[in-house]
Amino acid sequence: MRRHILALSGGVGGAKLAAGLAAVLPPCDLTIAVNTGDDFEHLGLTICPDIDSVTYATAGLNDTQRGWGVAGETWQAMAMLRQLGETDWFNLGDRDLGMHIARSWRLRAGETLSEVTGRLTNGLGIAHAIVPMSDAPVRTQIVSDEEVLDFQHYFVREQCRPVAQAIRFEGAAQAQPSPRLAEALSRPDLAGVIICPSNPYLSVDPILAVNGVRQALAALPVPVVVVSPLVGGKSLKGPLSKLLDELGAEASNLAIGKHYKGLATHLVIDDADAADAEGLHALGLSVTITGTVMCDADDRERLARVALSAARIEQEDHGTR
Amino acid sequence: MRRHILALSGGVGGAKLAAGLAAVLPPCDLTIAVNTGDDFEHLGLTICPDIDSVTYATAGLNDTQRGWGVAGETWQAMAMLRQLGETDWFNLGDRDLGMHIARSWRLRAGETLSEVTGRLTNGLGIAHAIVPMSDAPVRTQIVSDEEVLDFQHYFVREQCRPVAQAIRFEGAAQAQPSPRLAEALSRPDLAGVIICPSNPYLSVDPILAVNGVRQALAALPVPVVVVSPLVGGKSLKGPLSKLLDELGAEASNLAIGKHYKGLATHLVIDDADAADAEGLHALGLSVTITGTVMCDADDRERLARVALSAARIEQEDHGTR
Repeated sequence: MRRHILALSGGVGGAKLAAGLAAVLPPCDLTIAVNTGDDFEHLGLTICPDIDSVTYATAGLNDTQRGWGVAGETWQAMAMLRQLGETDWFNLGDRDLGMHIARSWRLRAGETLSEVTGRLTNGLGIAHAIVPMSDAPVRTQIVSDEEVLDFQHYFVREQCRPVAQAIRFEGAAQAQPSPRLAEALSRPDLAGVIICPSNPYLSVDPILAVNGVRQALAALPVPVVVVSPLVGGKSLKGPLSKLLDELGAEASNLAIGKHYKGLATHLVIDDADAADAEGLHALGLSVTITGTVMCDADDRERLARVALSAARIEQEDHGTR
Repeated sequence: MRRHILALSGGVGGAKLAAGLAAVLPPCDLTIAVNTGDDFEHLGLTICPDIDSVTYATAGLNDTQRGWGVAGETWQAMAMLRQLGETDWFNLGDRDLGMHIARSWRLRAGETLSEVTGRLTNGLGIAHAIVPMSDAPVRTQIVSDEEVLDFQHYFVREQCRPVAQAIRFEGAAQAQPSPRLAEALSRPDLAGVIICPSNPYLSVDPILAVNGVRQALAALPVPVVVVSPLVGGKSLKGPLSKLLDELGAEASNLAIGKHYKGLATHLVIDDADAADAEGLHALGLSVTITGTVMCDADDRERLARVALSAARIEQEDHGTR
């Protein structure tokens, strides 16, 4: 019986649904492949913001007030680094630093990012597979008229000030999918793919850009359910709208439907965007309308069940695309 | 006029006197060269326990209760590392980790240990020169019947359990003195050398073992004042007596006087060991008897002045050896 689910996730919003899926599915039935395009080297440490967001959310360690990082975090190491004259534009909590230190030294010791991520998530008691999209470095970069910036430099350090001309996923074309992502894509018991509510252009496209992933997804005989990151036509996390405007990427469910053309079979959209259903149907997509804002564990699990139901309905209705 | 002082220091006890010297001498008149034999690589970080002890003591950041590390320290990163299954035998505070992260990434970026140490001590507002004995790695190792252990592994991880057969300073013979130590040794205005109250066999010998340092010290036409680390014939920090016993190194001022034969001109010993003076005189050494226990800044500065006076008296009495 087809019962395995592959989830693709970026950071915050995606991480919430990934945690919801992990709460309602047994470990053997779920693979969560995470964007690593936002990864970067900082103060000698390899930081994987999206893997950490998914990990902290799934382990129940995430700070729901601040929206990122670990709950109950302290900032002593950062205070010392600041005193020592080191750069402080990327705020690193003490507990979070424990994660980066462990990851960085294991990578330097020769482990792959998949191995390290397995080790670290197991350490936090997570039985589900949280895997990087690739073990090879892929770097999402913003090309502006003046320079090329790694994403965190553009987003956090420069606060999105440079005018973006293009976005690129450096290294993606040469990067192979991680072993567990490749395995999930070729499992005979794969029942469906859920694209978590992450930014399509910034958080999901890097995953699709990894060598062969887009083609493999397009060829899958299973439903691909996109949970829209929009509520009322707007991204819940606002600061990227400037970037998307500059790139001519429209923030609407219709634009998302078109963006995923040939990949998605189903969109889950928010109640506030119910009017978008008609246009999406016209694109040949099935639509589920529900509340998509996730404030707590109940919300995350409910939305996970809705997305899984959509995948199952698709599976029963269509068999294959 | 000869007025520059070169201090040689190990960790805790030595660090206290080094801080005292920095409190009573202007920055231009003092070079503090620190043992790096206890340095080690841990979780991908380069840790320099003695440099940090001297730095924290001189910056007034040291924890005087615990006897090591930074005052007001927290342990959140270590708690996370432990949860992630990483080794926790060497306890790293959060503020301390800020120091190790900064040092490690600067070293990886190509700075020398001297450059990094200058940068970090300046960051903490220290105007005095705290310099490594060498920029090349030297590792104090304990040779036991079963294995060769880096010092921190022997001392902290194994709690001194292995039976020591020998001590060695791996890399010392090939290591050149750091630029600032070499400069201090050849300054025409060098007035004296003060060997701070650190373990002669474990903390000072590695400095002397650096290529050319022992010979340069022996050839200096200035007083070399050793402040004994013993009080009442015992080391203030106890756990190393087992090691010294196994190596046949006697913990007495007479043994220390013999150990530094040809180098030292003067010993500063504690009131409790006044009876040792006669034997030391017989070795040709001058002796100052005073209280050497340093509990607070006043103690440190007083002992610093006593040691400096001893150097000045030596200078006036003997001119050269």
